[in-house]
Amino acid sequence: MQQGQTVSVPSASAAIDRTSALSILARCDELAAHSTLPGGLIKRVYLSNEHRAVNALAAQWMIEAGMRTWQDAAGNQCGRLEGRTPGLPALLLGSHLDTVPSAGRYDGILGVLIGIAAVDRIHASGTELPFALEVVAFGDEEGTRFGRALLGSRALAGTFDRDWLDLSDADGISLSDAYRAFGLDPENLGDAARGSDDLIGYLEAHIEQGPYLEEADQALGIVSSIAGARRFAITVTGKAGHSGTPFDRRHDALAGASEIVTLIERTARDAGLIATVGHLDVFPNAVNVIPGRVELSLDLRAEFDTERDAVFERLSTIMTEICHSRGLTLDIRQTHNAPAVACSPGLREAIAVGIAATGQKDAQLLLSRAGHDGMAVGDLTEIAMLFIRCRGGVSHHPDEHVTAADVASATDAFESAVLSLAGATL
Amino acid sequence: MQQGQTVSVPSASAAIDRTSALSILARCDELAAHSTLPGGLIKRVYLSNEHRAVNALAAQWMIEAGMRTWQDAAGNQCGRLEGRTPGLPALLLGSHLDTVPSAGRYDGILGVLIGIAAVDRIHASGTELPFALEVVAFGDEEGTRFGRALLGSRALAGTFDRDWLDLSDADGISLSDAYRAFGLDPENLGDAARGSDDLIGYLEAHIEQGPYLEEADQALGIVSSIAGARRFAITVTGKAGHSGTPFDRRHDALAGASEIVTLIERTARDAGLIATVGHLDVFPNAVNVIPGRVELSLDLRAEFDTERDAVFERLSTIMTEICHSRGLTLDIRQTHNAPAVACSPGLREAIAVGIAATGQKDAQLLLSRAGHDGMAVGDLTEIAMLFIRCRGGVSHHPDEHVTAADVASATDAFESAVLSLAGATL
Repeated sequence: MQQGQTVSVPSASAAIDRTSALSILARCDELAAHSTLPGGLIKRVYLSNEHRAVNALAAQWMIEAGMRTWQDAAGNQCGRLEGRTPGLPALLLGSHLDTVPSAGRYDGILGVLIGIAAVDRIHASGTELPFALEVVAFGDEEGTRFGRALLGSRALAGTFDRDWLDLSDADGISLSDAYRAFGLDPENLGDAARGSDDLIGYLEAHIEQGPYLEEADQALGIVSSIAGARRFAITVTGKAGHSGTPFDRRHDALAGASEIVTLIERTARDAGLIATVGHLDVFPNAVNVIPGRVELSLDLRAEFDTERDAVFERLSTIMTEICHSRGLTLDIRQTHNAPAVACSPGLREAIAVGIAATGQKDAQLLLSRAGHDGMAVGDLTEIAMLFIRCRGGVSHHPDEHVTAADVASATDAFESAVLSLAGATL
Repeated sequence: MQQGQTVSVPSASAAIDRTSALSILARCDELAAHSTLPGGLIKRVYLSNEHRAVNALAAQWMIEAGMRTWQDAAGNQCGRLEGRTPGLPALLLGSHLDTVPSAGRYDGILGVLIGIAAVDRIHASGTELPFALEVVAFGDEEGTRFGRALLGSRALAGTFDRDWLDLSDADGISLSDAYRAFGLDPENLGDAARGSDDLIGYLEAHIEQGPYLEEADQALGIVSSIAGARRFAITVTGKAGHSGTPFDRRHDALAGASEIVTLIERTARDAGLIATVGHLDVFPNAVNVIPGRVELSLDLRAEFDTERDAVFERLSTIMTEICHSRGLTLDIRQTHNAPAVACSPGLREAIAVGIAATGQKDAQLLLSRAGHDGMAVGDLTEIAMLFIRCRGGVSHHPDEHVTAADVASATDAFESAVLSLAGATL
């Protein structure tokens, strides 16, 4: 810098734009610090101390955006900005704050923060809407802790099954006890359920978790529908034994389970849908002991439920045959069943108008192969989703990445979508 | 019972036969109670509090059998009965007190107790032998805690590699620190090594861990040789990602590892040797995340080392091809390499004489597919082994079972084998 040149430095009192992309990304970083894993890895599960901490941060940001806040009976963090008169039905904006183990910073989180930013802008502009705006930060979408996804959004949708209270986590803590430890009474879970008359719909912004926006060189896309997913807990039981035992005397649960994993992949690939074995535990899991038992998960998803269910039937037959031929026993238990959910044409149109307002010419209609809170909320009210390009289609991994420019476009589009709905509702 | 009838009740001072089969089985039960697992399941690993407890019990029984006792620098519990003059070379009798997870009560343990009982009888009879008798209760044969087997017997054989001190257990505790916590100085490990001039051989009694004695309706057998085993730690690395990711974008470490497990089994079976994948861990191991990394073990054993090594080379090529085709990386590290060990003709003959003395007509010569402390001791002195029938060939499992009659025969045969050697040495 040349001597004598003057430089303009922002003063400490200058207003910080809480709704800029950089602010939103800084908030993602702040939330990422609340993790049970060391070394910068992110894991944050339902009803944990980290859940409590991020709810408090979200509540503070909701208040700064002009909202009245509360934590509902299921631990979802909620905020509400009234419309032009108090008590109007609400448009929900939301996503989740929980994560998988070794997660990225944006899956779920970004949608909550874009929702808060959109409300902040509308509140700051003084615009009076013909509906209330609510942001919901769901406490459990991933199902990491209790093996059952969408616990937060199911509670809000009034579809929470009280049998789930007996689910337990890896430490043997029941969901019921986890609610109590979090300061919630499981007897009151029903209070989290909303009435459909009080709602006009649900909008969610989310990273794409797929490669199609990046391939098309587009920042934003419109979700057509969310693929239906079914999940199963599978137990293969054989007999543990010494690793010197001849093959014809073995009932090796891992040899059977490995054949099952290989055939799940082949069958699903041939059928054109998606299957994943993400979780597999071996017992007793010692180098010199033939595995006596293997527990594994199966996650099946497809655009059409009938297609998915037909593949499950085929897989079920194959697994039974493999176990029978090896003298193993097989147990298959369904842990999750979410039918495919279509986005509503009216709300999709609002998303399209929002994207167009950012100057993006074409917006792709994309099937979401990943599940979302919208699947559960879809039982209660109309839903639609905005997808944001993510690098390499990578998610559920520390490499998850979005650009500030895309976050800026997404926030603009989301705000415009809300305003467009207000126009349509006027 | 009719009134007035007299019943003979053993008085408290009546001698209990410490060397009867029922006493030996009761001692197996007493040792089984020292476990880190709840619910009656047995797990007892090297340098643990349970290891300390069973060493103390074994020492007490050794003293009752007339032995002088000490714990060596590697935590092996030792006892010695002098021969007709003090300081003579010793015949070692031994096996191990550590276990796999969810173990049975007899693998290793029974051999230690039969050794103690044989010494007890010889001491009680006042027989003076032309050699000393020593019993060694090895602290680590299974390798459960540090993933490397035979640590106790390697230390005694003087083949302990000091690099192993950096091995760590599942809690990250190094072998070095575990020695210190057990009250041993790893600097002094060399003191556990014995000189071959001080020894005349090593005999071990052990359950068969195979079906052949049961099938032949025989209580006892003679081991021809111990199969050579190699163990490997294999890491398959892909990329974690959301379970909605299409197949053509996946690098699923578990899909690759499952194919590997299936092909290991097929290749080993076709080649007529034994391979086991007993340990397999998935990361991050969540139902809705494509596995990014899998760590698995491979245990390979065969009667002939060259045959085994040729199969490993073939497996190595297959694993490389599988990983290459799936965009996965592969790392294979050898953790254990024990060449096949032949039992010495002279000691085998003593075992045969011992079995004949029990009235058993024929004694099969059996290959041990399981590894034993004798493999390590074989580097130091001549070895031989007596096999005892076990129900269904089952071991490394809570169902492990021997009959009292077979334990009685084995103890008689072991004692006779020792006396036969004494005769041959006279």
